[in-house]
Amino acid sequence: MGKRLLIFSLFLILLAPVSAQRSQILADTLHSEILGVDKSFTVYLPAGFDTSGEEYPVLYLLHGAFGKNTDWGKQGNMKRIADQVMSAGFALPMVVIMPDARGVNANGAGENMGYYDTPTWLYEKFFFEEFMPAVEKKYRIRSDKGSRAIAGLSMGGGGSISYAQHHPELFSSVCSLSGLVGEPSRLRSGADYVESFRESVVANAPQRFLETADKEQLAALKTVRWYLDCGDDDFLAEDNVRFFVTMKKLGIPLQFRMRDGGHSWEYWQSALPSVLQFVSVGFAR
Amino acid sequence: MGKRLLIFSLFLILLAPVSAQRSQILADTLHSEILGVDKSFTVYLPAGFDTSGEEYPVLYLLHGAFGKNTDWGKQGNMKRIADQVMSAGFALPMVVIMPDARGVNANGAGENMGYYDTPTWLYEKFFFEEFMPAVEKKYRIRSDKGSRAIAGLSMGGGGSISYAQHHPELFSSVCSLSGLVGEPSRLRSGADYVESFRESVVANAPQRFLETADKEQLAALKTVRWYLDCGDDDFLAEDNVRFFVTMKKLGIPLQFRMRDGGHSWEYWQSALPSVLQFVSVGFAR
Amino acid sequence: MGKRLLIFSLFLILLAPVSAQRSQILADTLHSEILGVDKSFTVYLPAGFDTSGEEYPVLYLLHGAFGKNTDWGKQGNMKRIADQVMSAGFALPMVVIMPDARGVNANGAGENMGYYDTPTWLYEKFFFEEFMPAVEKKYRIRSDKGSRAIAGLSMGGGGSISYAQHHPELFSSVCSLSGLVGEPSRLRSGADYVESFRESVVANAPQRFLETADKEQLAALKTVRWYLDCGDDDFLAEDNVRFFVTMKKLGIPLQFRMRDGGHSWEYWQSALPSVLQFVSVGFAR
Amino acid sequence: MGKRLLIFSLFLILLAPVSAQRSQILADTLHSEILGVDKSFTVYLPAGFDTSGEEYPVLYLLHGAFGKNTDWGKQGNMKRIADQVMSAGFALPMVVIMPDARGVNANGAGENMGYYDTPTWLYEKFFFEEFMPAVEKKYRIRSDKGSRAIAGLSMGGGGSISYAQHHPELFSSVCSLSGLVGEPSRLRSGADYVESFRESVVANAPQRFLETADKEQLAALKTVRWYLDCGDDDFLAEDNVRFFVTMKKLGIPLQFRMRDGGHSWEYWQSALPSVLQFVSVGFAR
Repeated sequence: MGKRLLIFSLFLILLAPVSAQRSQILADTLHSEILGVDKSFTVYLPAGFDTSGEEYPVLYLLHGAFGKNTDWGKQGNMKRIADQVMSAGFALPMVVIMPDARGVNANGAGENMGYYDTPTWLYEKFFFEEFMPAVEKKYRIRSDKGSRAIAGLSMGGGGSISYAQHHPELFSSVCSLSGLVGEPSRLRSGADYVESFRESVVANAPQRFLETADKEQLAALKTVRWYLDCGDDDFLAEDNVRFFVTMKKLGIPLQFRMRDGGHSWEYWQSALPSVLQFVSVGFAR
Repeated sequence: MGKRLLIFSLFLILLAPVSAQRSQILADTLHSEILGVDKSFTVYLPAGFDTSGEEYPVLYLLHGAFGKNTDWGKQGNMKRIADQVMSAGFALPMVVIMPDARGVNANGAGENMGYYDTPTWLYEKFFFEEFMPAVEKKYRIRSDKGSRAIAGLSMGGGGSISYAQHHPELFSSVCSLSGLVGEPSRLRSGADYVESFRESVVANAPQRFLETADKEQLAALKTVRWYLDCGDDDFLAEDNVRFFVTMKKLGIPLQFRMRDGGHSWEYWQSALPSVLQFVSVGFAR
Repeated sequence: MGKRLLIFSLFLILLAPVSAQRSQILADTLHSEILGVDKSFTVYLPAGFDTSGEEYPVLYLLHGAFGKNTDWGKQGNMKRIADQVMSAGFALPMVVIMPDARGVNANGAGENMGYYDTPTWLYEKFFFEEFMPAVEKKYRIRSDKGSRAIAGLSMGGGGSISYAQHHPELFSSVCSLSGLVGEPSRLRSGADYVESFRESVVANAPQRFLETADKEQLAALKTVRWYLDCGDDDFLAEDNVRFFVTMKKLGIPLQFRMRDGGHSWEYWQSALPSVLQFVSVGFAR
Repeated sequence: MGKRLLIFSLFLILLAPVSAQRSQILADTLHSEILGVDKSFTVYLPAGFDTSGEEYPVLYLLHGAFGKNTDWGKQGNMKRIADQVMSAGFALPMVVIMPDARGVNANGAGENMGYYDTPTWLYEKFFFEEFMPAVEKKYRIRSDKGSRAIAGLSMGGGGSISYAQHHPELFSSVCSLSGLVGEPSRLRSGADYVESFRESVVANAPQRFLETADKEQLAALKTVRWYLDCGDDDFLAEDNVRFFVTMKKLGIPLQFRMRDGGHSWEYWQSALPSVLQFVSVGFAR
């Protein structure tokens, strides 16, 4: 058997381009005083980051309910997709930060969850006051509205929109994929830990914001570039088209796409190239 | 100068494939007893039609308000698009019939218009009782539900849906592009010739049909394959998403797409390949 | 902890459509007299198969070198992709058979490998004489050229082409993704078990077939519908464009696509919808 | 008849967005000392140009053989396509300059033609020494490599590549659509006015450049972003894939696409959005 050692490499060695320095996906952690815990997050650094010495624009890329910071890297295949789109010349090199919106308990979700503040979990406060300043300093990120975008799927799509509704002065572009933009009627109440989460989602629903915002707030939304994409088989399709229609009635320009598909990683993977292209053009303006 | 006669052909002669027999686009006319006039229509015959001796499936392809039967062939570039999709093997050879829904006066539109019956213009009656039987006999068309599809743009998108709502036993697939599916609030009244047209559009609105149909009628809609496509910049976008949501609530499966674009021939040209693919799979089932 | 039982279902229960009967992906095995072993294979049955009683067209879907029959179902995500394209109405319901072209040893590859006959491994003979007849009988498959297609990736792309070159009377459509169509210069020789495999690949190379076939063989190739797709970053790109040019010079119509990407599952997953559409139109002719 | 005045506007007035200032397409003329004639050209100014006061990046967009500067605006529908892609946020606002490479005689082509210098028609000299400096000054264009791109179809695709091969220090991106990259075997000789044109095309063929360039010249090509797109039915497909393979062998990164289609305006129109996206990302780097 010895001389028959497998030469598995035959087909595999061929794919290696000699790019000076490849993209990387990293696990990192930050201690939060506000939350009182360590929060993990995932970082995508584009090819050439280590050697360029340059500052980069940043995309915050948010996971969905009951998800975590590693989702986009694993189920979402984001590294290979981003590498492909960037190397093809259809997106700018950018840092992508994937935060974690889980609560504290051990099994991957918990009493506290989500991108909004609850009485016991000030996640939004954490995001803007601790997390964003820290990562933008640590990873050579250009900290200006024109160089900052945010995107997410499902609960993270809704979170992306909300963050830009609350801070239009901070984001150039927002991309919501299958976003939780309305009130989550399907979130069952009764479990007390979910209740405060559910309340925070209702209180911050992007649709509600549009319906209650004042003139000044609405005017500020026009300084953000909006891109929404939701599948025609998605259970959130109705909420998404309502949000789209409301934005149009309010005169706030947005892009809206409805492709074939449901609430699935196939959909989000196939959406990601357009997200990267859209935010790239926003960075460049 | 003689010897300098231009040889312009140099680049041009090269494109001719030696296909036995090319597709054709024809102008034809039918006398209607019901309407009391001659009605022109346009016919697309796929490559090989003349020599095959076979019967073909058919797509009725409807123009928009104030349009005419030649629109799809001219602004819509339908011959080249259909040739391309069919020769690439992504659509079946089919006959495409483009009817004319103009009224009688000379300038290309008139007192009477549209796909519905008005007191002075029984177009729907004409379509089903005179036109469809005559063209399906004349052009070697297979006259069964499984071999018949209908599509259209704007007013013709609405007309396509209505025809299949009224006769689900006749069509396998319906494709509405930027369809006029709601009440045409923007159709100004006051001009008496438009009024009967406007009334017919209101009375037959696809949205209204859904909201007033009985159980049996709704059940029959499930025997039809539905495909709707409307641009996110289209002034009919809101009506189209409402129709989509209503269909979903009624449990009638449909495909819905919203791509970038407005109420324009660019949009309809880029939609046509998917229409031809979708109806082809319907023909084949 | 009891009252805090997780209600993870909140978002998850919503995705279940009430389709009468879902698609299935099955593991099956066949004993081969020719090979002297049991050969496993994977079967995709479309939604409605169990209850329809109908016969279906079939697509044979081949894996790559050092792969196995479960690859398309796992890395290729073929079930979800096929479900999506079929339920959207862009592909016909069909049975998909994924055979196994590994050799005998335990670690997933071996002395013998591939889709061609070698002195010690008569795989092509097995495929046509044992495998194809058996599965087409067992799974209600229509056994005629018009209802049979073959596709594959890399070594399986080359195998698909070869099988249809050797038996143009058996296949209506062939789709090669990133196909190994030339001589595998990169397959190292020296390991004796690989040598007979390498020799079989050289002897059967689709490119060589084109260059050595007689008039009658070439004419028969025109009865097959050809679709090739290869990424511009693929190490097999050059071989694929050479094959494309040779086919054109020989006057054999084919479709050729070069999209962005390399020799990767991202590429093959994104290619699969077009494969299913293309073979569907072939089945329907 | 009077009271029946047509209100055709009903559907038409609705499309007007209230964009401060629309894009424009202009006809302009420049007197060339080098050529001894006035040369017309076409200019696309993006929405907001008049009021912004800013400098813009520029895309030179070249027509094909026997074509002229107005082709892209008419058959190519470039204004509507560019408006759509830019307003959707997938391309940067840019000035597009469409030059004229016709010769002098009256019928739209002539003894002299093309983008290269001939003994009697120093077009390339004119382009770089007179035309480019003049238009970049007149139309508030940023005159640096990073803000300048060039693209074209057929003869203009070849011209685009050649210009960047001759002046890699001037262009960030090049996009060739169905480019004449090899020797035009199909250009008949015999007509003496064509002969000098034909000779200039042969002498400057992009393929020949690659095969004869020295190391330094080849190294400089890596500072340019290359995008080639050619249909699988195009008579120039073979030349294009040869160019692609040669570039890869030389280690010069490029994007290559082969989609379904031939040497046609349908192909070029559908290619234009990707061109605008690709050059935009180049401008932004």
